[in-house]
Amino acid sequence: MGGIEFLKGHGTQNDFVVLPDPEGKLELTEERVRALCDRRRGIGADGVLRVTRAGAMPTEAPDVESIVDRNMWFMDYRNADGSIAEMCGNGVRVYARYLREAGLVEGSEFVLGTRAGARGVVFNPDDTVTVDMGSPHRNGHAAVRVGETEYDAMSVNVGNQHAVSIVEQPVAGIDLSAEPAYEPEDFPDGANFEFVNVVSEDVLRMRVYERGVGETRSCGTGTVAAAKVYIARKENSNGVGTADVLVPGGRVSVRIMIGASTLTGPAELVARGELDESWWRSAAEPV
Amino acid sequence: MGGIEFLKGHGTQNDFVVLPDPEGKLELTEERVRALCDRRRGIGADGVLRVTRAGAMPTEAPDVESIVDRNMWFMDYRNADGSIAEMCGNGVRVYARYLREAGLVEGSEFVLGTRAGARGVVFNPDDTVTVDMGSPHRNGHAAVRVGETEYDAMSVNVGNQHAVSIVEQPVAGIDLSAEPAYEPEDFPDGANFEFVNVVSEDVLRMRVYERGVGETRSCGTGTVAAAKVYIARKENSNGVGTADVLVPGGRVSVRIMIGASTLTGPAELVARGELDESWWRSAAEPV
Repeated sequence: MGGIEFLKGHGTQNDFVVLPDPEGKLELTEERVRALCDRRRGIGADGVLRVTRAGAMPTEAPDVESIVDRNMWFMDYRNADGSIAEMCGNGVRVYARYLREAGLVEGSEFVLGTRAGARGVVFNPDDTVTVDMGSPHRNGHAAVRVGETEYDAMSVNVGNQHAVSIVEQPVAGIDLSAEPAYEPEDFPDGANFEFVNVVSEDVLRMRVYERGVGETRSCGTGTVAAAKVYIARKENSNGVGTADVLVPGGRVSVRIMIGASTLTGPAELVARGELDESWWRSAAEPV
Repeated sequence: MGGIEFLKGHGTQNDFVVLPDPEGKLELTEERVRALCDRRRGIGADGVLRVTRAGAMPTEAPDVESIVDRNMWFMDYRNADGSIAEMCGNGVRVYARYLREAGLVEGSEFVLGTRAGARGVVFNPDDTVTVDMGSPHRNGHAAVRVGETEYDAMSVNVGNQHAVSIVEQPVAGIDLSAEPAYEPEDFPDGANFEFVNVVSEDVLRMRVYERGVGETRSCGTGTVAAAKVYIARKENSNGVGTADVLVPGGRVSVRIMIGASTLTGPAELVARGELDESWWRSAAEPV
């Protein structure tokens, strides 16, 4: 076949197609992202991680040059619907796992460029990966509706926008087959919606509806947003602490610090290979 | 990584992981089939096509030796839930496409062993593949229920068991999020359920719920079963004719003859590569 190199991997079952493209030569159109992520017509994934150098990013990402070294590895992340996303916490771990296995980074840590800024990445001895998730910001309350039920949500920005609702009813019973409703002025660019139970002290259970994707088995930035809200309202926390977050796809650990946060979790590569060339050509066409 | 060779392909968006294993050395357990077909934890597919020689099939498939040459290519098909299936019409095309691209068959036709018998396969000039689907048999009426609605179905065997309901209401409106209900004595081993509209003369629209999988975008044997029922009740057909069948994933063409049938449709290989070895080892464990 002889085609486009790819890998498939997942972090807590948030899954990705990885496209090694250091020189930025791939013509990765929205149609191709959608075809790649289509679970029957393509490989299937929640998103695409293009592995490229910061200097190879197109000029329509002007923020890139100001924040990262041109030779730094850069995570060009796309949602399954073809849209561009700023950051993906589970994606960073899978991306980092690929770089290490391919011998493209050495040692136990490195710094990765993303649309949400440069992020430190650490490979832990237990095979998990820890990612600097920047400083999550709370931006006040907003109402979120699922069916007839209205929930109080906290607006949190983790490089991307979240709406976190810590609720009493078991999150397993909430219908996330469609996007929750919200006031457009609260989230003009949309949001990811997290519904959270406090299972025990510093242990949360979370389900998430991701913008442009639907319900997923995990969302890294979402777990950080959830931990941020939980720790902020915990007595005597001074806004600092750690929380384990159980998501349908597994378990991650979040540390919230003053003006910083980290996300630790597993990353697994499932397969590597080549996309068929004629498939890649046909994938450029709208369906 | 250096692991287990695989391909991913689809026929009218009925998608498959192809595992080349000519000598039957792979330990393909039910757990591994489920892990491979898991759309986030694995590659993701409606089923697995193990490419092996008939002589490499285990003795628990005693029907194999009586019907096929030991050197014949044999389609060891598994459903996404790990169960064994007799036959898969869309899978045969993908399997055949792989054999041809890998140079394992020559010329424009060959005979393939399956659990439902030996089947002729033809590569057409327009890049479609035609598969001998054997002789579909109608076995009388049965009742099928979706929610509160009861449908009259025709029981049809195409190597596997189908329940075909030709209905007046648009099939787009039928809820196939759960398996239709039926009397166990009508389908003791279960069935695939097809709901069919007649769009125009010899053109059908079909949706299908596959046993052990759920709704899929196409089911090859199901399209043959649907065409069989349509042509049988068509005036002056003498039980012989052709029908195009539109499924959510594309279009196929079925020819019904006396004691025989063929299915013609596209087959596309999306990617090829290797499964990660440590992933393959962990995939042997139940989740």
